[in-house]
Amino acid sequence: MDDKTRYEELCTQVRETALLQSTAALLEWDQQTGLPAKADEYRCQQMTFLAGEIHRRNTDPKLGEALEQLSDSELVADPESDAATVVRNLKREFDRNVRVPADLVKELAKATSAGHNIWVKARKEDDFASFAPTLQNIIALSQQKADAIGFEDCRYDALLDEYEPGAKTAEVDQVLGGLRDALVPLIDQLKGSETQPSGKMLHRSYPINAQKEFAREASEKIGFDYSRGRLDETHHPFCTEIGPHDCRILTRYDESFFSAGFFGTLHEAGHGMYEQGLRSDQHGLPTGRYCSLGIHESQSRLWENLVGRSYAFWKHFYPVAQQRFPQSLGDQSLDDFFAAINVVEPSLIRVEADEATYNLHIIIRFELERDLIDGTLAVDDLADAWNAKYESSLGIIPPSFADGVLQDVHWSAGLFGYFPTYSLGNLYASQFFAAAQAECGDLAKPFANGEFSELKKWLNERVHHHGQSYSSPELAKKVTGQALSHDALITDLRNKLLPVYGL
Amino acid sequence: MDDKTRYEELCTQVRETALLQSTAALLEWDQQTGLPAKADEYRCQQMTFLAGEIHRRNTDPKLGEALEQLSDSELVADPESDAATVVRNLKREFDRNVRVPADLVKELAKATSAGHNIWVKARKEDDFASFAPTLQNIIALSQQKADAIGFEDCRYDALLDEYEPGAKTAEVDQVLGGLRDALVPLIDQLKGSETQPSGKMLHRSYPINAQKEFAREASEKIGFDYSRGRLDETHHPFCTEIGPHDCRILTRYDESFFSAGFFGTLHEAGHGMYEQGLRSDQHGLPTGRYCSLGIHESQSRLWENLVGRSYAFWKHFYPVAQQRFPQSLGDQSLDDFFAAINVVEPSLIRVEADEATYNLHIIIRFELERDLIDGTLAVDDLADAWNAKYESSLGIIPPSFADGVLQDVHWSAGLFGYFPTYSLGNLYASQFFAAAQAECGDLAKPFANGEFSELKKWLNERVHHHGQSYSSPELAKKVTGQALSHDALITDLRNKLLPVYGL
Repeated sequence: MDDKTRYEELCTQVRETALLQSTAALLEWDQQTGLPAKADEYRCQQMTFLAGEIHRRNTDPKLGEALEQLSDSELVADPESDAATVVRNLKREFDRNVRVPADLVKELAKATSAGHNIWVKARKEDDFASFAPTLQNIIALSQQKADAIGFEDCRYDALLDEYEPGAKTAEVDQVLGGLRDALVPLIDQLKGSETQPSGKMLHRSYPINAQKEFAREASEKIGFDYSRGRLDETHHPFCTEIGPHDCRILTRYDESFFSAGFFGTLHEAGHGMYEQGLRSDQHGLPTGRYCSLGIHESQSRLWENLVGRSYAFWKHFYPVAQQRFPQSLGDQSLDDFFAAINVVEPSLIRVEADEATYNLHIIIRFELERDLIDGTLAVDDLADAWNAKYESSLGIIPPSFADGVLQDVHWSAGLFGYFPTYSLGNLYASQFFAAAQAECGDLAKPFANGEFSELKKWLNERVHHHGQSYSSPELAKKVTGQALSHDALITDLRNKLLPVYGL
Repeated sequence: MDDKTRYEELCTQVRETALLQSTAALLEWDQQTGLPAKADEYRCQQMTFLAGEIHRRNTDPKLGEALEQLSDSELVADPESDAATVVRNLKREFDRNVRVPADLVKELAKATSAGHNIWVKARKEDDFASFAPTLQNIIALSQQKADAIGFEDCRYDALLDEYEPGAKTAEVDQVLGGLRDALVPLIDQLKGSETQPSGKMLHRSYPINAQKEFAREASEKIGFDYSRGRLDETHHPFCTEIGPHDCRILTRYDESFFSAGFFGTLHEAGHGMYEQGLRSDQHGLPTGRYCSLGIHESQSRLWENLVGRSYAFWKHFYPVAQQRFPQSLGDQSLDDFFAAINVVEPSLIRVEADEATYNLHIIIRFELERDLIDGTLAVDDLADAWNAKYESSLGIIPPSFADGVLQDVHWSAGLFGYFPTYSLGNLYASQFFAAAQAECGDLAKPFANGEFSELKKWLNERVHHHGQSYSSPELAKKVTGQALSHDALITDLRNKLLPVYGL
């Protein structure tokens, strides 16, 4: 078989696996949107079976042989070519996949499946002790996984690499440390100001149906394509990809809190527009896949915060919002509304945090999970360590486990290495947005006219279209000319927040 | 390996295939309920891939060997045992499956997939000639399939067997012929009566939301379990099974026609209650699968017509209906409403036909498709043959292809052998219902009180619970003591319709 044929067969095989993966995604979407009450057990069986089939295909020795042979082929001589992107990324994933023993994969799946329910109960009952042994077990299995994958400097590297390929713990530590050092004084400065904007108006009554229509309208206006996607309701918002032209975003609405539904939808629409901006003819291949979770999050954050919380955006949308919610916004000025959606206030719950303090929540989790995986922090000491960090970073101590160490689903799901990608996303978002403005000119003008296509087009071409041709640092460098840093984000925050706080 | 272990491995293997089949069912359900406009092509790829995997598993030579060895085992000595039911039915299916060459399966899938769109267009444009070559090809492939499967008397037997295992064309011809001979004079008698009830009130305005609530209420009341299922809207109503506790019924509502949504929902709920009545611990095995399409249809028709169009049913539900639709039913008596939902009138469209004339539509299709498959009727003569039969059986000639030979999806989908199961279902329904009344006593009394659990329980125990332990004729004999005949249906129709027509 010549290399060209071998490469084509490889692509066919991998695209077939993607058919199964996208089908598994539908099983999950359906589970989160409308599964009958008693159907959950069988749904888990369906998902487990498909996961097994996918794992079997992903660790097929024949796949490994083909990748080995193609890695030295002339086909991949140009590292920026599609073939090189496909082979390089598949090989990286294959090498990871085969290193983790099948038994360990199963044990982790079992532990996290059971762990989820134990965590739900523990959080409900505010009982960390009842979750601790489960967490201990999941950490031990995750450590085994990291050891099986292998690492150079730090065990956490092996896990981080799954979500942010090529990222190193030390680098993340440095860039997030820099971010914290710049954020804390900024937050202090805002806290000390005489002008303190109020977010109270966002907690008035916002009828759900009007929220739904508004969220749909805004997400469509910024560029989410509903002929290639849909919007539904769920408990835990997410975005999922059921096919190259079938991206589904899910959100939830709170009748007495405007921001949850609206900004949640913009956030998921940002994720969705990334998926919709990938090359659909490359679906299932690394050339048609998102670069990393950090880059994915940069797209959601960019649309949620840099666009959706900008003054220009609301210059266009505020009159619409007032028409849709006359009782709650009829008596409020645009300026006051803009201030309300940009209030900065240290709080306990990550998913409810504002744009600035959000990153402190992430940094805390990153440091804790790194130490848990490293073995330098024991589960028994975790709750205390959590509270100590909240006190030192945010100045508040959680009054309960539920509002503290038990608030997030990630650790019960074994997602160690995932948290930092949220803040990396914020950093990339600001860097990309600055580059877009440098190239396209001031985007506030089109935004104020309800025009978002220029930015979307720029992102399509400069970010989305590349798939996995570059690693996330390479992509940032290529698009922005700069290495990853906190500068752009801090600049954005200062430019927006200081005036809101009269500074 | 001993037979017990072999049997257990067989069951595991088959249950795994069922995981894929139920996942494929979700792909289809989702396609029919909310697929984004541009996602159809990839959805077809997903479904084709899964169908291929399922076919591969179903024709795995190892499966054949295991079935061959188990067929002679002591495990299956008692033909009514679970093991015997499982092995016998799986062997029958396996033997069918391996006889059809994989290439032919693919060609048929391709032809019917393309054929669907061509049919949709042809029906829209009322152009039979543009569909004829496609139909010719699908028939030729279906003939090849029948020849590959093999038959004794009649080529159509081989296709009929897929939907109604063990049924023979000659027997179906005889029983449906007898049904026609009894129906035609009854319909004539009704037509000639001085009393002619009117169905006009059913075409008043019925707000969709009120219809939805009423359909949901009634379907729940008769026994469809919403903790193990759901009800959604679609263009072409159906019932599908996504797992042992996940049965989904789909219906459509017409604002200006009460019957479409309401009786359509009862019909699908009847299918759904059959699925919900199967042994859930046997899910995926023949012991937990429906007996035949005829028996499936008997359950939908029983609840739709024998229960849902009975006077007792409306004694309970009519006051509710009047409350829900005060504008359309407030001024109408129960007796007039009951007459309206039981009007008999020859018409052109099968799916809109009344309980009596419906069977004439089916008999026409059965005779035509039998002859098409036999080769004694040419596609070029099909439209004329269709119209001639409508004239002689129903006294009307379709004014267009769309209202005639192009009205049904079945042939474009290659579903030859499917139509007769609709009328077999009507026959079985009346036989079962008579047996239920003979054993439980007059069911009109509990119905008039909104009590349907006794009938549901009887069906669960006497019909549903058996899965594929018996063939449909065996099941009918066991449950009713009688062979399949048109007597019970004609008795039901006469008892209800003659009084409605003042006879």
